[in-house]
Amino acid sequence: MSDKLKFAVIGGGSWATAIVKMLTENLNEVGWYMRSVYALEHLRRQRHNPNYLSSVEFKLDQLKLTNDINEAVAYADYIIFAIPSAFLHSELQKLTVSLHDKVIFSAIKGIVPETGLIVGEHFHDEYTIDFDNIGVITGPCHAEEVALERLSYLTIACNDESKAKVVADNLQSEYINCKISDDIIGTEYAAMLKNIYSIAAGIAHGLGYGDNFQSVLMSNAIREMKRFIKKVHKMKRNINDSAYLGDLLVTGYSIFSRNRMFGNMIGKGYTVKSAQMEMNMVAEGYYAAKSAYKMNESNGAKTPIIDAVHAILYENKNPKNIFKKLSEKLD
Amino acid sequence: MSDKLKFAVIGGGSWATAIVKMLTENLNEVGWYMRSVYALEHLRRQRHNPNYLSSVEFKLDQLKLTNDINEAVAYADYIIFAIPSAFLHSELQKLTVSLHDKVIFSAIKGIVPETGLIVGEHFHDEYTIDFDNIGVITGPCHAEEVALERLSYLTIACNDESKAKVVADNLQSEYINCKISDDIIGTEYAAMLKNIYSIAAGIAHGLGYGDNFQSVLMSNAIREMKRFIKKVHKMKRNINDSAYLGDLLVTGYSIFSRNRMFGNMIGKGYTVKSAQMEMNMVAEGYYAAKSAYKMNESNGAKTPIIDAVHAILYENKNPKNIFKKLSEKLD
Repeated sequence: MSDKLKFAVIGGGSWATAIVKMLTENLNEVGWYMRSVYALEHLRRQRHNPNYLSSVEFKLDQLKLTNDINEAVAYADYIIFAIPSAFLHSELQKLTVSLHDKVIFSAIKGIVPETGLIVGEHFHDEYTIDFDNIGVITGPCHAEEVALERLSYLTIACNDESKAKVVADNLQSEYINCKISDDIIGTEYAAMLKNIYSIAAGIAHGLGYGDNFQSVLMSNAIREMKRFIKKVHKMKRNINDSAYLGDLLVTGYSIFSRNRMFGNMIGKGYTVKSAQMEMNMVAEGYYAAKSAYKMNESNGAKTPIIDAVHAILYENKNPKNIFKKLSEKLD
Repeated sequence: MSDKLKFAVIGGGSWATAIVKMLTENLNEVGWYMRSVYALEHLRRQRHNPNYLSSVEFKLDQLKLTNDINEAVAYADYIIFAIPSAFLHSELQKLTVSLHDKVIFSAIKGIVPETGLIVGEHFHDEYTIDFDNIGVITGPCHAEEVALERLSYLTIACNDESKAKVVADNLQSEYINCKISDDIIGTEYAAMLKNIYSIAAGIAHGLGYGDNFQSVLMSNAIREMKRFIKKVHKMKRNINDSAYLGDLLVTGYSIFSRNRMFGNMIGKGYTVKSAQMEMNMVAEGYYAAKSAYKMNESNGAKTPIIDAVHAILYENKNPKNIFKKLSEKLD
């Protein structure tokens, strides 16, 4: 592999760690920024991330570790963001180095709460980055299975196909298959919407609905996703490609998904606040539900599942009643 | 509900038992044929099927029980077949009563091994039943969840919509939602193909592939199903409707599916013969793989998953190698 282009990963979570692992299969050196000094020190001494995918052992001479985001950005030509969308705004506030000569790929699945934008649009609108320099990395991919080197498929989307190809070439390995796409908007919305549907799956489970209902919910969700994305960005796409349907399934059927877990607690009777406190975090789909609902008010796609999740999370409606009504709209 | 039309269910398994339960929510009397005299006697004494869904208690005065298939057929206007496809041919051999003034619905998901036909076509070709008198009942629906009265959705397909509506009206209840379709061929092929994909999911699991791969496999499977069915019977259908995608998911993700279990054993190294002996039965998808593969030789749809399952089950090929090659064809 050519080492001429430099890569940096922004984030210290499981997905960031998985992406660094993928890159180290191909590159002699990978820049890696994480906020936590403790985690960084642990990595330097023990060669693994203490908090996430701790079974993955890194070679230290392959890592250019830093807890200064400016250093990571200055170092790299390609920067992959893999932090929760809720932290993106505050991390970007720290930047003194310009992003303008960089290629930016988002591995974030969500909405930036401060602007209500998907990540690609946030970089474009707030930092005037050209869409040709913005890309998206989507699954279906649990980071945990990357750690185990279980065969996984990624979709790399960018307007500029040659840049998607560069990223794909550097992520690809024995256990990672990459596919190129030019649907940066669609894949990013799919990645965001699936978290809402995953919350819905969790609520249904928490309320006592079974596997039969879950399969009907998912089959309605993919049709709803198609209608939603078509309104946002109409182009020829097969919604059953892995980046859309596969990503929905891997999250919607995962008992480890934080969104599903959050929904499950809501279904079991927790309030939104207490579920968030109990989980000690906010599930991405929580913000996504608000943004998607709001966005669709003007777009007008038929989205009964998003509407139901929104009613429960933001209008204080009773999950049992809302899902009873939702079930009558599904088929 | 009107009781003018009489219904009989043919079969003593879990799906037959679930359908009888659904019908008894609407009808004063339901004909029910099962082969096993023992099970019949148990039902008469204990009011539940001893072998399947034994938690479901029936009211005996609602059941017209018989172990004479001719009696059941003579009794009813609508006959619902819910036996394994492997037994259909031999059961029909017992018939002395004509099927010609009857409406026949198939709740069988598979191929009749003796003729290589899906059930609707078998009745049409072998018994000269008009397609207007043949229908299909498909899920996504685990019988076990019907027993628990968990909300489930059925699709009732018939060329003659009024007959589909009669069946739907008599199956519908608080916990069963029915949808009408005129795609009898497509829904029946979907129900048969999903068993092959469920075997594939099992093989993958047995070989150690994870959830990421499973979601990619399912997302490829639904596209393959669409291509396959389009060649057999081209009409306007949304492959993401519950009868197609939902049915695929409920089986492909179920750890209780016999097809998935069978595939899992193959993936773990059992031979086909020993897996069948161990399971004490033949999974529906085993026959389906042969028929679908053969049928597609002339149709020519791109079906890498069916081809892979066929190669393993019928060409004695090594599952690990075949799935390695298959994984390179998926995206």
